[in-house]
Amino acid sequence: MHMLISHWQVDVQIDQLIFERLGSCSAVQAAGSEEQPEIKPMPGSGFTVVFDPLDGSSIMGANFAVGTIFGIWPGGSPVGLAGRQQAAAAYAVYGPQTILVWAKPKAAVDAPGEAFSEANGSADAEQQPGAKEAGGAPDGPSSACCSVGNIRDSHEVQEFLLLPDGTWRLQRSGVAILPVSSTYAAANLRAAAANAEYMALIQRWIQAAYTLRYTGGMVPDVHHILAKGSGVFCNPCSEAAPAKLRLLFECAPLAFVVEVSPTSPLQKPAQRAGITCA
Amino acid sequence: MHMLISHWQVDVQIDQLIFERLGSCSAVQAAGSEEQPEIKPMPGSGFTVVFDPLDGSSIMGANFAVGTIFGIWPGGSPVGLAGRQQAAAAYAVYGPQTILVWAKPKAAVDAPGEAFSEANGSADAEQQPGAKEAGGAPDGPSSACCSVGNIRDSHEVQEFLLLPDGTWRLQRSGVAILPVSSTYAAANLRAAAANAEYMALIQRWIQAAYTLRYTGGMVPDVHHILAKGSGVFCNPCSEAAPAKLRLLFECAPLAFVVEVSPTSPLQKPAQRAGITCA
Repeated sequence: MHMLISHWQVDVQIDQLIFERLGSCSAVQAAGSEEQPEIKPMPGSGFTVVFDPLDGSSIMGANFAVGTIFGIWPGGSPVGLAGRQQAAAAYAVYGPQTILVWAKPKAAVDAPGEAFSEANGSADAEQQPGAKEAGGAPDGPSSACCSVGNIRDSHEVQEFLLLPDGTWRLQRSGVAILPVSSTYAAANLRAAAANAEYMALIQRWIQAAYTLRYTGGMVPDVHHILAKGSGVFCNPCSEAAPAKLRLLFECAPLAFVVEVSPTSPLQKPAQRAGITCA
Repeated sequence: MHMLISHWQVDVQIDQLIFERLGSCSAVQAAGSEEQPEIKPMPGSGFTVVFDPLDGSSIMGANFAVGTIFGIWPGGSPVGLAGRQQAAAAYAVYGPQTILVWAKPKAAVDAPGEAFSEANGSADAEQQPGAKEAGGAPDGPSSACCSVGNIRDSHEVQEFLLLPDGTWRLQRSGVAILPVSSTYAAANLRAAAANAEYMALIQRWIQAAYTLRYTGGMVPDVHHILAKGSGVFCNPCSEAAPAKLRLLFECAPLAFVVEVSPTSPLQKPAQRAGITCA
């Protein structure tokens, strides 16, 4: 996405652009965004796409990497469904490069489709076999996109790089996260003022010579973990420093991507509650 | 700078590119870089440019914003000179946008010149009056570039945005930093394991509900302060966690930019020692 961020309305512009693209995708039955949270019906059928058009508005002015988050749900609404019932999830991270990471159903296409592409030209047939729809599998059984159950067995995380000619290049498949780490992103650290456990955790990481990386944007901070193959993102809160993350637009899609990654330390359901909002 | 970071040799590529551009700049008498630290003579005359071609190599793989740092010294070598004797200093930050910030001598040109520009076309005459040389003032007395003394009175910090057509747009002049802040970048935090003062400082900031932003790249972390108009960057060390920043390639140029900013809290020489390497 070639962005020229010239004013503070860029989130609204991205929001409109994505709604437009989703409207031309035959797999999209409904859509909603952090800017327009009410789910709107769309012309296609199959999935509901919920997105945060610009995650990291507080750091955009500093030219830090920012991103877009997509949660892709089966049917016409996410209401009443749990995060792990998403059909797929994705995020784009805009830094020196533009990268798209998604947790795709295994039977789905191997590349982001038209909804995410700026290219009107033909896709590389070898890299994008039959890719026509985001989240859909036009040449295969679309029911594969709706599989629930053990998401680790039925999904895979892929990373794509946006090339200068507007096409996406598959960079990595089977993106994994090691169960050990010495890097942490300490979100909402001010909560440690009243949260003794959080303060103790930070002190333990300092004593263990862990490396701090915290941009303040959930997309780049989570992407750091997937890019390096290890890391911890935590966001404890307190009464004076409440959680600011939104389950539908941020936590559920990014947690889904993290959980799909093989050897994830969060693969046991009982350990998952704290992934983003402890 | 249109970068396609395809492998780990990108720092070498940027290094070569900058050396080539400096070689065609008549104001550049010598140049050295973090990749080739021995100062090399160049065809021009007037200044020595010392640069870190890619600051933030540890975070580049995560697609975080990274940067390039330039120290511009009078004459043929920085040897024996103090940081405040730099003629000018600059950094580029590559995030969603490409931005150049420089502390320019007041009598110098109002825009980065050919050495920093990718455009071969004509510059906007209104925005770039007579801009032909980086760090030089072809239409004025070049001695202005060498002024020492009170750098705050003779310099100004400007910020430029790289446009899609390859030209630079002046975004801000007189970039200032407020003397108070509630945001901090805690570099080398592992040093707090053995540095009780650092641990106490972090705890004080947590208690005061300060906001943490720390990408791990000195350019984006310092740029955050200039972009927001306030903030603290600190990098204490300990025996087990020694300082990694280099005075010539990182600290001196960025400290120069910070000190030139009006109302800088670091304007008193006695307070300056700790700016980046406490």
